[in-house]
Amino acid sequence: MTADELRKDLDAASARMKEATLTSESVFKGKLLDVWRDTARLPNGATSTREHFHHPGAAAIVPVLPDGRLVLVRQYRYPMHRAFVEFPAGKIDKGEAPLATAQRELLEETGYHGGKWTELTTIHNAIAYCDERIILFMAEGIEAGEQKLDENEFVEVFTATLEELLSWIAAGIVTDVKTIISAFFVEKFREGRGDQVPVKGS
Amino acid sequence: MTADELRKDLDAASARMKEATLTSESVFKGKLLDVWRDTARLPNGATSTREHFHHPGAAAIVPVLPDGRLVLVRQYRYPMHRAFVEFPAGKIDKGEAPLATAQRELLEETGYHGGKWTELTTIHNAIAYCDERIILFMAEGIEAGEQKLDENEFVEVFTATLEELLSWIAAGIVTDVKTIISAFFVEKFREGRGDQVPVKGS
Repeated sequence: MTADELRKDLDAASARMKEATLTSESVFKGKLLDVWRDTARLPNGATSTREHFHHPGAAAIVPVLPDGRLVLVRQYRYPMHRAFVEFPAGKIDKGEAPLATAQRELLEETGYHGGKWTELTTIHNAIAYCDERIILFMAEGIEAGEQKLDENEFVEVFTATLEELLSWIAAGIVTDVKTIISAFFVEKFREGRGDQVPVKGS
Repeated sequence: MTADELRKDLDAASARMKEATLTSESVFKGKLLDVWRDTARLPNGATSTREHFHHPGAAAIVPVLPDGRLVLVRQYRYPMHRAFVEFPAGKIDKGEAPLATAQRELLEETGYHGGKWTELTTIHNAIAYCDERIILFMAEGIEAGEQKLDENEFVEVFTATLEELLSWIAAGIVTDVKTIISAFFVEKFREGRGDQVPVKGS
């Protein structure tokens, strides 16, 4: 099946399998989490509960230095109670264009800025319960500068080669999905297989 | 930095950046979502709110037919209000071993069973707000059988070549993270680069 055929196939499946919203109740609205409990009409006519939450979406950046090294961050992730190695990323502010989010977050978290920016693709990381999407960007040939963190924000910056990052994924130490997917995309570009990487507008 | 060095480096970072739990309050407990609002002590001594939820974890399967084709599913994902193409997956039941979850979910969702099973790795898909982990398995040489869906569960099964799946990722149509990462792992195996794929116990 070609990609165009799959797109049509998925549209038809979405109509055939549709779960129509009957009721929608806000059950928790915090500073970050916006949780809802809906009831939905299933394709067989039955009714079921659907718990989910809204997320504003996020942008993540693959920052590439002029010598090809990659900029990574260490960040403490409270839900997992430990630090992770990740590419820089952050939530999209209300009304903000994803590219602006990406450039803002890269500057705030790492100080790096400038360079040539390419929008790669959008990935969905939690489709069972959340509408979060992460828009991936690549920033090539960036320049160093000063971090601009909030007072209570802690992000440690370091650099690595693509080969190091791939070895950390192979060892099961780098496990964050946006970071793994971005690393594989960079690998494909460097191997001349950019046709296997979704690039917006290409 | 080698993988072992990174592991030690991350342990040190986890201690240095630790956010210690001061209070923890259950704010919503549904059938699926188990949402908490904590307060935590940050590395600089300040206090901050941390909203997050617990997830039991999930297992996902790359089902490989004897001829090398892959088994995929179409499933309606209510939070996104449309159908997605994914590898089969499901939540870990209480006390269930992840391999048992994977084998149960593959049988229930697709009818396929048997074959040779390999645990690949564990990925983290929502570390900003959730402790979900997805354990990836590969099942090679599986046999067809009958789906065993719940009455109100709708999963459509189809098969594709790895090349088709990679082209759908390149076109930005397959966007589910566990499916993208698994596809790239299978590609590496087939290209004789299995050393770039984390395999548990290897």
